[in-house]
Amino acid sequence: MGNILNEKGKVYRSTRGWEILSTYMEAEKPSHLFVITDENTEEHCLSLFSEKIAINISVENITIPAGEKHKNLTTSLGVWETLSEKGADKNSLIVNLGGGVVTDLGGFVASTFKRGLPFINIPTSLLAMVDASVGGKNGVDLGHLKNQIGVINLPECVVVDIDFLKTLPQEQLISGLAEMLKHGLIHSTEYWERVKKVNFSEKNEFENLIWDSIAIKEEIVKQDPYERNLRKTLNYGHTLGHAIESYFLESEEKTTLLHGEAVAIGIILATHISAELLDFPKERLKDITATVLKYFSKKNFNKNDIEAVIKLLAFDKKNRNGKVLFVLLKDIGQYKTDCEVPNSLIYKAFEYYKNF
Amino acid sequence: MGNILNEKGKVYRSTRGWEILSTYMEAEKPSHLFVITDENTEEHCLSLFSEKIAINISVENITIPAGEKHKNLTTSLGVWETLSEKGADKNSLIVNLGGGVVTDLGGFVASTFKRGLPFINIPTSLLAMVDASVGGKNGVDLGHLKNQIGVINLPECVVVDIDFLKTLPQEQLISGLAEMLKHGLIHSTEYWERVKKVNFSEKNEFENLIWDSIAIKEEIVKQDPYERNLRKTLNYGHTLGHAIESYFLESEEKTTLLHGEAVAIGIILATHISAELLDFPKERLKDITATVLKYFSKKNFNKNDIEAVIKLLAFDKKNRNGKVLFVLLKDIGQYKTDCEVPNSLIYKAFEYYKNF
Repeated sequence: MGNILNEKGKVYRSTRGWEILSTYMEAEKPSHLFVITDENTEEHCLSLFSEKIAINISVENITIPAGEKHKNLTTSLGVWETLSEKGADKNSLIVNLGGGVVTDLGGFVASTFKRGLPFINIPTSLLAMVDASVGGKNGVDLGHLKNQIGVINLPECVVVDIDFLKTLPQEQLISGLAEMLKHGLIHSTEYWERVKKVNFSEKNEFENLIWDSIAIKEEIVKQDPYERNLRKTLNYGHTLGHAIESYFLESEEKTTLLHGEAVAIGIILATHISAELLDFPKERLKDITATVLKYFSKKNFNKNDIEAVIKLLAFDKKNRNGKVLFVLLKDIGQYKTDCEVPNSLIYKAFEYYKNF
Repeated sequence: MGNILNEKGKVYRSTRGWEILSTYMEAEKPSHLFVITDENTEEHCLSLFSEKIAINISVENITIPAGEKHKNLTTSLGVWETLSEKGADKNSLIVNLGGGVVTDLGGFVASTFKRGLPFINIPTSLLAMVDASVGGKNGVDLGHLKNQIGVINLPECVVVDIDFLKTLPQEQLISGLAEMLKHGLIHSTEYWERVKKVNFSEKNEFENLIWDSIAIKEEIVKQDPYERNLRKTLNYGHTLGHAIESYFLESEEKTTLLHGEAVAIGIILATHISAELLDFPKERLKDITATVLKYFSKKNFNKNDIEAVIKLLAFDKKNRNGKVLFVLLKDIGQYKTDCEVPNSLIYKAFEYYKNF
């Protein structure tokens, strides 16, 4: 493998992507082509995938239940068993066709079945396009704790085609926007200013924003694949974001948040903490807060909620020696990793979020 | 990590190994030191480990049930949950102290927890010393199918100390010998002639045989870490061996075989097939058969057993495009990979084994 796809994990766009993928499949002649979908992408994306693949190849579909709460070992076991029953071997190819849950879980299942089958990500949600499907991180949740079990292993390639977004519900589109806003904040005011004015119906400019967002992530991953330093910036807003997402996932009273909804809150909180600790400019903090709240409705957190979220920070994957470590910003595009944050500042940030 | 251990996966011996390991731990100051054992190595090896580690470091022990039938995802889940509860972070170090089940499962659990914690293998069985702990293959069984779920990921290092063999039951010692005999067959008549005359009570020569066996495996793994070709030779005797082991594991009537017992049978069968297909010398076949049967008592296979074993070959990890592919030998030290074998020759090999 690798004559056609000479750079593992590379993202190919639309028509060119399908051409590359078709050529690759024709050359490799996989013994089986397994396409992993969830219930939604089976319905809305599988036939489009078959149309886009220009070659005649028989597809074996494996569908998992939709939703973050199924991104776990039980679902993985089901897929492993199906692969085993259907005779998957090291010459089989796995295509993950779906949003972040499908690419995260499918990548993990492929990376560990018979110690690793080749796989390809075809993200069908905005979130998966600009974030989850790129960079080789995969995994599943352990209980309500996000992405605790997984590996870093690049797909053979990623094919991004925004045609899939046509059938994506609006709230899912918004959820993906959170990661694009994050890319703006960690990268440059230039990209931030463009993305904050996004108009989903201006197709060309929206598409360009997506490609630029992917390029920002690809460049970071290329420079620091194993997250020694720079790659940690991609966790901006995610330290509290993941804890909030986990908390809403486990709580019986709360409605489960979309990943982007949790990250959006995390971005506001991290930026407030950045202003307190690293003098991130106050007027930019206001601009960012207003921008995020334009897309993401405010959620309520009482004292108990905040306490529970802080407890969950103990499970963050960036922690070292029992310390919770944040990525913060001195300004847009100027990051500082491994920042310790006192709980008092976390409470203060929630207070700011509530009163804005 | 890596200043002290500059070559990932390297095997260090006895006193020197403990010195290196102690220095490494002193330098890295892991936030937690988790030692994974099974019920047997908790009893027989854990205190010896603590004596050998020359530094003062607190150990958190995680014990799994002993035996191949527990090398599965349920046991893995238990260890992941314990790590999570005890606050394992990316600065934690995992030590796998045990036989092949512990190093295989512990390596998999470490490689996938928070996308990978550093781990060290300290094999306490002969089999784990000369084979399982070396080379970075890890994994667990899927149902009764061997090692279907796992990754290739090297430990920080391996420390081999034959003092642990003092408490190893005799049948476990014999089980490990199967892999040493295999190393002889794929490597050289020189090593084969020495290992076939092994005397466990001649400590020095036995120890030398162990180091040479490890060196053979290390060299193969270094040349071909991802098993494109040469590394497949380490599967000599394992294609049928794994299928036989799986069959005895799932069958309610059969007593579960030790890995080495199954591989021993697989070696005889593969060598008979080699004689039929590749003109492996007949007198050597006899010598090998007699040597193996000196250590490993013969098992009975009726027609149904053989049919069931052949069915299980479909799950072998070396298979490509639905074909079962064997490693065979033209002579000792002269291998041929990816050989297709008709079922008739498999039946014939079992016949030879039965009548020898």
